[in-house]
Amino acid sequence: MTTRQRRNRPLLVVHTGEMKGKSTAAFGLALRGWNQGWSVGVFQFVKSAKWKVGEEAAFRALGRVHEQTGEGGPVEWHKMGEGWSWARKQGSEQDHAAAALEGWREIARRIADQRHGIYVLDEFTYPMHWGWVDVDEVVSVLAAREGFQHVVITGRNAPQALVDAADLVVQMTKVKHPMDAGQKGQRGIEW
Amino acid sequence: MTTRQRRNRPLLVVHTGEMKGKSTAAFGLALRGWNQGWSVGVFQFVKSAKWKVGEEAAFRALGRVHEQTGEGGPVEWHKMGEGWSWARKQGSEQDHAAAALEGWREIARRIADQRHGIYVLDEFTYPMHWGWVDVDEVVSVLAAREGFQHVVITGRNAPQALVDAADLVVQMTKVKHPMDAGQKGQRGIEW
Repeated sequence: MTTRQRRNRPLLVVHTGEMKGKSTAAFGLALRGWNQGWSVGVFQFVKSAKWKVGEEAAFRALGRVHEQTGEGGPVEWHKMGEGWSWARKQGSEQDHAAAALEGWREIARRIADQRHGIYVLDEFTYPMHWGWVDVDEVVSVLAAREGFQHVVITGRNAPQALVDAADLVVQMTKVKHPMDAGQKGQRGIEW
Repeated sequence: MTTRQRRNRPLLVVHTGEMKGKSTAAFGLALRGWNQGWSVGVFQFVKSAKWKVGEEAAFRALGRVHEQTGEGGPVEWHKMGEGWSWARKQGSEQDHAAAALEGWREIARRIADQRHGIYVLDEFTYPMHWGWVDVDEVVSVLAAREGFQHVVITGRNAPQALVDAADLVVQMTKVKHPMDAGQKGQRGIEW
């Protein structure tokens, strides 16, 4: 590889581990992509307490900045399987599995179309971990992706095949957590 | 403490460890604060390769969104000791130490004035690690802060006294890094 090739290579990044910071760091990375003028695609796979409304509002605002002024890049934010909730156990597990798989297939189509410069597949490790989306298919689609598309995948329990395929893997580990001291989750921090 | 008090307590957060994600996660957290309408104050202590221009541009855009539409919160972004560079070794170490200390004193004044809802002290562990800013003074000022001010400090080698004082400490550890495979730093990823 030339230096230029080594310098400009689309990366598969995985943020895993049991601690906070996996998703926030992915969104921080997406800020850099936005500033490069790349199309930012965020795909959320798990309905968490508040769907990360803070990041969503901020990225939607940045998307509007792009539309109005041309600064940065366009932003798309998708909730895969909107309407269902893991926590509330609405619908059956088969429904969840089907929704997750359909979400992944949509992403695979976008990758084939080279739709985005950076993809954040937030909490996408879970559908793979649970066997709802085949990790070998994911690795195969990502390995074959053309053009210049960075992909960031977050969540605990990253499957080994995904870690093996990734260029960059960061583990967020716990040193100290306020909930150990009785702290409850709070706005602006947890969401 | 009541549930409400436990729920709404200003946190001291430390992102440390040798791996990427410390600063990006801090900026991701700041997105949540912005969406809460809090005043976001970012203070950069180390001149890195590109000063994190991606995040800076995105947060400045969000600050303009706030000014123009009232959405989110105001944003201030400060480079402490602008003009000097650790890498280039301009000026003497004493100059750097004095600039870092002056930067910290400015933050301490803002904390006393309750200026911001969330402070990102990016790479602030280094001036403490190097002895340029007294960690006991930092811990003391942070412990005594009034009102509702979250503080996020990033960087390797977080001093133990800071870790002891923190509510939440995340360590970013390396599983795999693309530079191990000859990859060079690249725009949109490293800055």
